[in-house]
Amino acid sequence: MFSPLIKELIESLRCLPGVGPKSAQKMALYLLEREHKGADRLAGALREALDKVGRCSGCRTLTEETECSICADPERDATRLCIVETPADVLAIESAGTFDGRYFVLLGHLSPIDGIGPEELGLDHLDNVVLHNQVEEAIIATNSTVEGEATCHYIAEQLKSKNINVSRIAHGVPMGGELEYVDGNTLALALEGRKTL
Amino acid sequence: MFSPLIKELIESLRCLPGVGPKSAQKMALYLLEREHKGADRLAGALREALDKVGRCSGCRTLTEETECSICADPERDATRLCIVETPADVLAIESAGTFDGRYFVLLGHLSPIDGIGPEELGLDHLDNVVLHNQVEEAIIATNSTVEGEATCHYIAEQLKSKNINVSRIAHGVPMGGELEYVDGNTLALALEGRKTL
Ligand SMILES: [Zn+2]
Ligand SMILES: [Zn+2]
Repeated sequence: MFSPLIKELIESLRCLPGVGPKSAQKMALYLLEREHKGADRLAGALREALDKVGRCSGCRTLTEETECSICADPERDATRLCIVETPADVLAIESAGTFDGRYFVLLGHLSPIDGIGPEELGLDHLDNVVLHNQVEEAIIATNSTVEGEATCHYIAEQLKSKNINVSRIAHGVPMGGELEYVDGNTLALALEGRKTL
Repeated sequence: MFSPLIKELIESLRCLPGVGPKSAQKMALYLLEREHKGADRLAGALREALDKVGRCSGCRTLTEETECSICADPERDATRLCIVETPADVLAIESAGTFDGRYFVLLGHLSPIDGIGPEELGLDHLDNVVLHNQVEEAIIATNSTVEGEATCHYIAEQLKSKNINVSRIAHGVPMGGELEYVDGNTLALALEGRKTL
């Protein structure tokens, strides 16, 4: 029904997370019918980001600059390091507003099946950062999934052998969360990690 | 938090319908973290579609070809014309499988506030098509919205003055509903029950 270029645009929109065939079609027609300006801007932004965005030389987060804004900030305490899986996790922890150290962004987790090992996560670079910044404390904030836990365990062993104080972000009941809707595994961890009042 | 190029990518993704700030961020990071190939394909598809997709010389639907596949099909009855708002509406009516004529795609509806008048909808071109193809019957299938009804009325007057048998798609289509979301059976009934205007 649609001409080849429109079909190709619909197909290529499906690489976006959460976009199925119906919304890809809707998006393609919307752009071609009445959003040429936005589509042009998007094509340019994609091309430029693909060409120029790489890794921060400090924390390995995504950036087109040599150093990201956090690594470049002299006010941040370089001896404290929070290790996360993704740039979105950095944003989440920053929004809490209580951490004044730096980050190390793995961009993933250990996943041998997908060929993601210590090298792909930049763990050799993590060693350099730890040495160079004389890191004293590392907080591992990988996701609470099987892969996240395995990655945490691997990194913890690597860092503990260097006499660094390594901790894991606490697991428990979310603030404002109702107990009855929290899953059993989380509750078990929350009970285990209880604090004396 | 994010570097300028990543911010720009997030912003530019928001031109897509249904994409808010949170999903734009998710999309941008997803593409940069692990979908370079898809992002590259999308950038290319956008650029190419913007450069080359124009209007069908027959029905004015979106296509990069001179004539769309329906206008180029000699089996279709050129004396019967179905007038719709968008390319998605053509797809919807084709899925009903009962209409063997051709289409005329307005790419919109009359909307004086947005500066969309008869000229923007190609109604002068509609006159040419009607003359050139000796159209005998026109079925107006604009949306069942206030604007769609007003557009229908305007076009009906224009065509009736040319002694064409003009009908409106039957209101099996839910009032206020958008044509592209209506199922094929309902559309088949709506076509069958069309009323002379
Ligand atoms: Zn950095
Ligand atoms: Zn056509």
